[in-house]
Amino acid sequence: MSERQAYVLTITCPDTVGIVAAVSGFLTQHDCFITEAAQYGDALSRRFFMRIVFAGGALTPPTPEFDKLFSAIADRFQMIWTLHDLARKPRVVIMVSKFGHCLVDLLHRFHTGQLNIDIPAVISNHPDMRSIVEWHGIPYHYLSVDKHDKAAQEGRVLDVIDRSGADLVVLARYMQILSTDLCLSLQGRAINIHHSFLPSFKGAKPYHQAHSRGVKIIGATAHYVTPDLDEGPIIEQSVERVDHTHTPEDLVAMGRDIENLVLARAVRWHVEHRVLLNGSKTVVFK
Amino acid sequence: MSERQAYVLTITCPDTVGIVAAVSGFLTQHDCFITEAAQYGDALSRRFFMRIVFAGGALTPPTPEFDKLFSAIADRFQMIWTLHDLARKPRVVIMVSKFGHCLVDLLHRFHTGQLNIDIPAVISNHPDMRSIVEWHGIPYHYLSVDKHDKAAQEGRVLDVIDRSGADLVVLARYMQILSTDLCLSLQGRAINIHHSFLPSFKGAKPYHQAHSRGVKIIGATAHYVTPDLDEGPIIEQSVERVDHTHTPEDLVAMGRDIENLVLARAVRWHVEHRVLLNGSKTVVFK
Amino acid sequence: MSERQAYVLTITCPDTVGIVAAVSGFLTQHDCFITEAAQYGDALSRRFFMRIVFAGGALTPPTPEFDKLFSAIADRFQMIWTLHDLARKPRVVIMVSKFGHCLVDLLHRFHTGQLNIDIPAVISNHPDMRSIVEWHGIPYHYLSVDKHDKAAQEGRVLDVIDRSGADLVVLARYMQILSTDLCLSLQGRAINIHHSFLPSFKGAKPYHQAHSRGVKIIGATAHYVTPDLDEGPIIEQSVERVDHTHTPEDLVAMGRDIENLVLARAVRWHVEHRVLLNGSKTVVFK
Amino acid sequence: MSERQAYVLTITCPDTVGIVAAVSGFLTQHDCFITEAAQYGDALSRRFFMRIVFAGGALTPPTPEFDKLFSAIADRFQMIWTLHDLARKPRVVIMVSKFGHCLVDLLHRFHTGQLNIDIPAVISNHPDMRSIVEWHGIPYHYLSVDKHDKAAQEGRVLDVIDRSGADLVVLARYMQILSTDLCLSLQGRAINIHHSFLPSFKGAKPYHQAHSRGVKIIGATAHYVTPDLDEGPIIEQSVERVDHTHTPEDLVAMGRDIENLVLARAVRWHVEHRVLLNGSKTVVFK
Repeated sequence: MSERQAYVLTITCPDTVGIVAAVSGFLTQHDCFITEAAQYGDALSRRFFMRIVFAGGALTPPTPEFDKLFSAIADRFQMIWTLHDLARKPRVVIMVSKFGHCLVDLLHRFHTGQLNIDIPAVISNHPDMRSIVEWHGIPYHYLSVDKHDKAAQEGRVLDVIDRSGADLVVLARYMQILSTDLCLSLQGRAINIHHSFLPSFKGAKPYHQAHSRGVKIIGATAHYVTPDLDEGPIIEQSVERVDHTHTPEDLVAMGRDIENLVLARAVRWHVEHRVLLNGSKTVVFK
Repeated sequence: MSERQAYVLTITCPDTVGIVAAVSGFLTQHDCFITEAAQYGDALSRRFFMRIVFAGGALTPPTPEFDKLFSAIADRFQMIWTLHDLARKPRVVIMVSKFGHCLVDLLHRFHTGQLNIDIPAVISNHPDMRSIVEWHGIPYHYLSVDKHDKAAQEGRVLDVIDRSGADLVVLARYMQILSTDLCLSLQGRAINIHHSFLPSFKGAKPYHQAHSRGVKIIGATAHYVTPDLDEGPIIEQSVERVDHTHTPEDLVAMGRDIENLVLARAVRWHVEHRVLLNGSKTVVFK
Repeated sequence: MSERQAYVLTITCPDTVGIVAAVSGFLTQHDCFITEAAQYGDALSRRFFMRIVFAGGALTPPTPEFDKLFSAIADRFQMIWTLHDLARKPRVVIMVSKFGHCLVDLLHRFHTGQLNIDIPAVISNHPDMRSIVEWHGIPYHYLSVDKHDKAAQEGRVLDVIDRSGADLVVLARYMQILSTDLCLSLQGRAINIHHSFLPSFKGAKPYHQAHSRGVKIIGATAHYVTPDLDEGPIIEQSVERVDHTHTPEDLVAMGRDIENLVLARAVRWHVEHRVLLNGSKTVVFK
Repeated sequence: MSERQAYVLTITCPDTVGIVAAVSGFLTQHDCFITEAAQYGDALSRRFFMRIVFAGGALTPPTPEFDKLFSAIADRFQMIWTLHDLARKPRVVIMVSKFGHCLVDLLHRFHTGQLNIDIPAVISNHPDMRSIVEWHGIPYHYLSVDKHDKAAQEGRVLDVIDRSGADLVVLARYMQILSTDLCLSLQGRAINIHHSFLPSFKGAKPYHQAHSRGVKIIGATAHYVTPDLDEGPIIEQSVERVDHTHTPEDLVAMGRDIENLVLARAVRWHVEHRVLLNGSKTVVFK
């Protein structure tokens, strides 16, 4: 572990006495300086969650040795844990269909350094967004869907994801329902933006559903992809006021801005290792 | 119609050419001064909605004659219309069970003149809130529910409502499901506060449902009472951010503040004749 | 005036009896169908404001004659009025320096048709944003500022604006203070985005000021440009919660999203002729 | 320290390596179970802040001994620290003038147990709120102000505060400017609600100032009282959208709801020991 190098350590384990003392004692003992720390004990599930950002010091052992030493503590507390080197940029593959607003928003945040990621590939079932993606110097994989053989396209999608070394897949208004197999193989590393305030208005045309019900507030939801459509763990939601004068098309237009913000936050929190899974829910250390 | 006296005229009719011209022409011709006006044409339902606040002038005819004269226009455009004399305070009956926050909030707004209403009666299926209600000088009707004869209590409830000359009934966390008959007899003049962001989490214990789903925002909804539980036309909604640290009890506590605000707004807009029904939705002229 | 063609009529005049009747009567009489109408009488300034969207009918006179006929009413009520043909796209010139987020956001809304405008030119005192602007097929005018002769650059700026036939100039984080002369010549047709919740934190580095004061909410403000810096009529504001963990750089990053939304709304409302000036304030008919 | 008894430990000290390890190690070693913990290191001021909620165990030493043992750690890190026994209810004295909304709101939260405090006294320079205060069984101290001898009244105010054993004084729309001496003697334990979004619109009639400037959002601010009027460390702020139709009186009415929420949150966070001072700013561990 190189000196001054920053790491994020995330931990999930059964809640009990002494976890914080053990972890912080270990880090202090090995000359690490903690710059951020957050923990949460869920009184219902009896699970404990922790995220620590620290910098290595002169006496901090190098990574493989560090991992081995820490394993003793991890085993004692039955921890699920990961050590992320902040010098390594997460690799994010974006999938899109015809509505490009979320894609363009993510590309701009990437371009200006607001999102500290690499984007090795953009995948789409339509050719529409090729030009703007290639302007950013990113390969565009147009993989059209044959209605009679969806599995074939999914195979090619998974192939691009795998060859890209993707840490995260973002469904930025990708308008195809993924097969259960693909959902399972991406579990915990694929984020979808749903254009409603879940659990209201699941499924198709949520803004039209919202208009029809006459709600006074609309929203969008970023969640992890699971085989149960629109039922995955929620990472972030946001909302906006509407009134009787808004047509379904107005809601669609207003919704774009909400979707952009919600998805961008969820992606940033994920790649900064701020999101931990707690059953069907998330712990988000903002 | 007395000079300088203020009125609210509300109109619903099929949308067509010339409505605004006819109504505003009529008012100008009869020496009325318009101080507020709002209209909305729903392109889907082809219905037109209008709310006009005006003051009578020296040459404005008195009310029965005014009504008769206006009827000619109303008939021509097939208007459903009402003329409200702003000098007459709406009479609002409040119903409550054990959770008193919405009641206390409404009583304080009444007490300080923020809500320009009369409260001829508070009805409850529990005795708990008697003291604070009577401190405000308002009769408290404790009408307990016999599980084996709910109809009997509903009869007494309706009797109090009728004898009070109620223009509006507010279910301020009244935790009994009303019968279809009572819902129908109160249609368009009863407002309920539901402690979720409808249509999410209908039915019982919505904050616990919200906690269980892991949503990042909770809300409350004020709606007109209809026989379909939690399906009535929505008048107002509001929301608040929550996170993984909040227990169901925290959500309940935060929700109280949202419920207070949402219900108070809905009641105020209703008694100021700002809410018009548009099928299963509302037009709210704020 | 061609049949089915849509127009926006905006009116400002002293408040008195009969304005709505006169205007709506005139439109009805000339076979126009009103699709939207909003009015507001300011009880303090005694000014009346109106915005009407209507479509011409078979018997509606053509534009020059229509204008002449309407002038009779306009003169009677001392109206300041404008008739906008919705078939003609407003021409918007955008000015930018090095921070490109607002520009990129506006370009994307333009590109996808969310903003129904033409962008004949982008002007900058830096070359940085040329590539993305030209990708959109828009001429990029790089006009550098000579500190010893700012007037020379302003002359070239005004020349581009004039030759572009600009209806509106948008200062999308243009980091030069305009001279009083330029402000006056653009009065009522130039919108600036200020990166604070005005009137708090005028002037330079507002996010750093906000951090230093320890506020719990930050914001951004879109306003018309006037010679008094950051004092022009406010069109729109929005805010976001922050807390003690946010550095000034975090506030800058969060602020970008607020600025984008606020500026995009202000531009849209302006080009849809929804914003009327009321002294140093605005009337916004959303 | 009794078993199962809950405590809050708050710590402020220079940031350095090993604080969390030392504190959590100490608590683990003395059989305490941590249920909540939050920390923050301010990179600018180089100060470290920590709040830990824990329950004592069978082997936890009783309080005076616990304090003595912990002092060794505290001295090593130059900590300013306090140990709060959660079984002891904070004593809160409320001061009010004629506008009673914040008072009534706090009384209701106290009455229903939402605020886990004692209210030994309400002080006012007007008699208006006596009845509702005494209905809650709380002594009402009407201490009128003699314009020519304000110091005399302040002496009586301080006397009531002292005799009440107040941990916190809440200025719930108390419309007198406190002397520098009184501000200093209450420093860190007096919260004021200012009816604007500070630092905008300091001083008198902020809603009228906001109306005059034409802002599109208004707010309220709860802050600690300092001799510099409206300049104390901000604890909480909230806002609401307004538009051109709102009169100054409308803003006053809307503001009441914002003030209630903001003040109630600030009071709750303070009495739960969630607010730590960081120079002229606050760290709030929500």
